[in-house]
Amino acid sequence: MELLEERIRKDGTVKEGNVLKVDIFLNHQMDIDLFNEMGKEWKRLFADCPINKILTVEASGIGIACVVAQHFYAPVVFAKKTQSLNIDGEVYSTKIESFTHKKIYDVIVSKKFLSPDDHILIIDDFLANGCALEGLLDITKKAGATVEGIGIAVEKGFQQGGDLIRQRGIRLESLAIVESMDAKTGEITFRH
Amino acid sequence: MELLEERIRKDGTVKEGNVLKVDIFLNHQMDIDLFNEMGKEWKRLFADCPINKILTVEASGIGIACVVAQHFYAPVVFAKKTQSLNIDGEVYSTKIESFTHKKIYDVIVSKKFLSPDDHILIIDDFLANGCALEGLLDITKKAGATVEGIGIAVEKGFQQGGDLIRQRGIRLESLAIVESMDAKTGEITFRH
Repeated sequence: MELLEERIRKDGTVKEGNVLKVDIFLNHQMDIDLFNEMGKEWKRLFADCPINKILTVEASGIGIACVVAQHFYAPVVFAKKTQSLNIDGEVYSTKIESFTHKKIYDVIVSKKFLSPDDHILIIDDFLANGCALEGLLDITKKAGATVEGIGIAVEKGFQQGGDLIRQRGIRLESLAIVESMDAKTGEITFRH
Repeated sequence: MELLEERIRKDGTVKEGNVLKVDIFLNHQMDIDLFNEMGKEWKRLFADCPINKILTVEASGIGIACVVAQHFYAPVVFAKKTQSLNIDGEVYSTKIESFTHKKIYDVIVSKKFLSPDDHILIIDDFLANGCALEGLLDITKKAGATVEGIGIAVEKGFQQGGDLIRQRGIRLESLAIVESMDAKTGEITFRH
């Protein structure tokens, strides 16, 4: 998606350790107009899919998912990190390892909100090693729900997560795939 | 807001320990159409305020804030719980005690995203003892930003948070204020 690639080039910053900071528009400060354009694009890409629910994981996926959901006329469910006292006992749970925070989270979704009747679009801001996605896929599998596809804003194409998902035959639409980036020059190359 | 009160009566559940569960439409599964109606109502209530940015805190405030922001043509900034390795060193920070999770969080906002030029609308899903709001107000004060007002979906009127905020002269618009609720009968009474 050209609009997103342009925005990453303009406002993204490459840091040492394969870190791409896009916190000015994607995952700390959030550009809602951009999210709506992303929603239109995913709606175009998944137009043939009977999607009735959007699934994401807290925290930075939630904003994108909620704005994008308007283009699918669907509710959003977000997977929660760690057990909350306000969650009923009956939950689907899995473990997700966070590359960013260097720890393992328990992630849960109430059984009330996922069922075999659901046709899910998974939405998240970033895809690198794919741990968060594997966790969400595990939860949908436990629920017996159908995953129609996955929409990712920024995929780090030089890490393995995206390829592992595609090899499993799951439809993955990343709106920008970073092929390589250079912390010294700031240069970012996208896959097309 | 009648629509929200009706929805709470219909889909909310009162549990022992002053817990009001509205996870079917507000803070686990999220009804985006409802969020848009809430956005229209806050836009009406804050029509005279020069709001240029929406501030919330992860996780359950983010979805509401992002949908509501569309009615103000403003970006959203969400305060993050705990220090992330992807956050630049320069942040405003405060501590927030969570009633729900029984612990204290460090909460941060990058200094890039709040300044004395900002006129902030704070949005969150719940107001009970007000700890999360006090934290967000502390961060805006450190940034020198102007808080035009606070929009809360559900206020527990029988806890002190809302009154403490109003006593400080801050404009607080809660769309539903629960005056009392009864876990045995399931009855919920709203303040008007």
